[in-house]
Amino acid sequence: MNYTLKNIPERTQKPREKGLTMVMDKGLSLRQVEDFLEVSGTHTDIVKLGWATSYVTPNLKEKLKLYKDAGIPVYFGGTLFEAFIVRDQFDDYRRVLEQYGMQYVEVSDGSIEIEQDEKCEYIRKLSKDFTVISEVGSKDATKIFAPYKWIQLMKTEIEAGSWKVIAEAREGGNVGIYRDSGEVRQGLVDEILTQIPEETIIWEAPQKAQQVWFIELIGTNVNLGNIAPAEVIPLETIRLGLRGDTFSHFLNKK
Amino acid sequence: MNYTLKNIPERTQKPREKGLTMVMDKGLSLRQVEDFLEVSGTHTDIVKLGWATSYVTPNLKEKLKLYKDAGIPVYFGGTLFEAFIVRDQFDDYRRVLEQYGMQYVEVSDGSIEIEQDEKCEYIRKLSKDFTVISEVGSKDATKIFAPYKWIQLMKTEIEAGSWKVIAEAREGGNVGIYRDSGEVRQGLVDEILTQIPEETIIWEAPQKAQQVWFIELIGTNVNLGNIAPAEVIPLETIRLGLRGDTFSHFLNKK
Amino acid sequence: MNYTLKNIPERTQKPREKGLTMVMDKGLSLRQVEDFLEVSGTHTDIVKLGWATSYVTPNLKEKLKLYKDAGIPVYFGGTLFEAFIVRDQFDDYRRVLEQYGMQYVEVSDGSIEIEQDEKCEYIRKLSKDFTVISEVGSKDATKIFAPYKWIQLMKTEIEAGSWKVIAEAREGGNVGIYRDSGEVRQGLVDEILTQIPEETIIWEAPQKAQQVWFIELIGTNVNLGNIAPAEVIPLETIRLGLRGDTFSHFLNKK
Repeated sequence: MNYTLKNIPERTQKPREKGLTMVMDKGLSLRQVEDFLEVSGTHTDIVKLGWATSYVTPNLKEKLKLYKDAGIPVYFGGTLFEAFIVRDQFDDYRRVLEQYGMQYVEVSDGSIEIEQDEKCEYIRKLSKDFTVISEVGSKDATKIFAPYKWIQLMKTEIEAGSWKVIAEAREGGNVGIYRDSGEVRQGLVDEILTQIPEETIIWEAPQKAQQVWFIELIGTNVNLGNIAPAEVIPLETIRLGLRGDTFSHFLNKK
Repeated sequence: MNYTLKNIPERTQKPREKGLTMVMDKGLSLRQVEDFLEVSGTHTDIVKLGWATSYVTPNLKEKLKLYKDAGIPVYFGGTLFEAFIVRDQFDDYRRVLEQYGMQYVEVSDGSIEIEQDEKCEYIRKLSKDFTVISEVGSKDATKIFAPYKWIQLMKTEIEAGSWKVIAEAREGGNVGIYRDSGEVRQGLVDEILTQIPEETIIWEAPQKAQQVWFIELIGTNVNLGNIAPAEVIPLETIRLGLRGDTFSHFLNKK
Repeated sequence: MNYTLKNIPERTQKPREKGLTMVMDKGLSLRQVEDFLEVSGTHTDIVKLGWATSYVTPNLKEKLKLYKDAGIPVYFGGTLFEAFIVRDQFDDYRRVLEQYGMQYVEVSDGSIEIEQDEKCEYIRKLSKDFTVISEVGSKDATKIFAPYKWIQLMKTEIEAGSWKVIAEAREGGNVGIYRDSGEVRQGLVDEILTQIPEETIIWEAPQKAQQVWFIELIGTNVNLGNIAPAEVIPLETIRLGLRGDTFSHFLNKK
């Protein structure tokens, strides 16, 4: 830190098991990745190359190398996994993962329908060679699961070998654990937290109000995902009670 | 592409007559242009320097050279044309176009009122020396044309020499072919398409939902404009059915 | 300017006392600062490192040097001042300001409650060594001051030594002088302007519609703040009547 302020909430250190910031790269250039790492590298735990953007972006190997050299794991968005599965190309996907030296993989069913047994089978297979992140929740705003279903899905996928489960929200933050308006489904989140350890969940929270809500509920070291590259520094200040939004929340705790 | 997926919709190749992506640069630095070209150059067909931003941005010649070297045509936004016309400086505008070696020019009447005959006269004159893109639709949300009027304007301007006609939406995507809310005026678009060949129209579609709507209606290779530089890669995945939004649409077609 | 247009509104020149554009940097990298300066340096009067982002961004000294070399003053956001005050670390804050060679300082009470006498005492003390910008208005959307209170606060803080007073709006533009929706509290602004010289006020106006509103009310050379780096060029065109939004406004004036 550049100067000393008293009574700042304690932040976990990298490599973190909780307090993760997962960032979405949806097409940065190599130089933009360097700029991002300069400013936010120390505050970023893991980077997702959003959905199937890796299919059309050039310089993929060079980009992966930049993140690797900075010690930040990268994974392809779950929609890419689904694009291979729906085409019956699972083995091809494994080869792509190996070809690019990926160590993390996302397993999701946001855009396709897979039986849970089949999804868990993918998690089991992939978790032998990769760190698996699995995503729960549909990208379809009309498919709303009851809380018990979220809990059952998360539990089963963790048992199958997922390192973390992600609660779906998309880049926009308007489905899954959120209403159309971006407002959090509070009852759902509360109920999930009665059954699933909070450090096992990464909450997609692209909007500032969503980040604030989870930090006030769970604390400085909540796992948050789908953060835009330019929002990592703002998020870090919100975690530390150094932005207006959480300024009073942390003061009142003392 | 970085790996092989089966059954990906076929994309036209540059130089394209349809499937164009027109990007709006509203003040990129030279290095930012280089970054943009690295990532999105192969997916970008034409760049507009938004409205009259070219009046106040430095390094204009150098920027134009970067785009030229990448083989991407550039034109000044139509509001600049209108700013010269309203000041009775048409000849000055021609000199500016020549001075900067422009090969494309936009003719529009989004902020001023010009008789259609006069507008078409500008199109006729300019199309002798430049590729003309003409824009139909007002930036004023209270000026709503009936569909037959849109069709008549587009037809006449194409006959006068326009290479493409642009359907107005502004940077925000909330006027012209859209309602205040950004929602598409579907009936209007359907009616236009009964009379005007779709490859002749560039639909301004800055919002993701608008891009999705046109891709689902017209297909992978619809012409879309006013795309923000950082949204070209996301748009390309939407065109290919590789983002959640159009994932099922293209699957169901098979 | 890159070419000549007649009848462009007259813009004040740097160093300006009115017509200021204050930009918010919420975590730019060094190269991003260079890119920003290349394009927008001549149109930017002062830069704020948003709230307490300076606590967590690396390369702070190098960044300050880049702005200094470009002749653009920089100050830390008021929330940082408040973070020190609420921890009873005012003297520490002075040392931080000196350590980083700051010449400007913001005094605010957007997130904490300070008696006005105490706030003015800080303004008095700091104005001996620094150029003070003080901010009026709460970040709390439920705390709404009556117009006479805004006027009294502004007057008193200017008398205490503030160079300019800032009317609060946050990065989002949805509190203070604006409603939740971002709409301007017109009556409030009108009443403030009957008592406080407009060149003494910097209006935070992050949204385009807000910038347009103030430019139409006060003119090309109104002081506007919390402008995002990429929006300086667009703002400059709005000031000059060269974007659709103010195109007719300035024409009709002639």
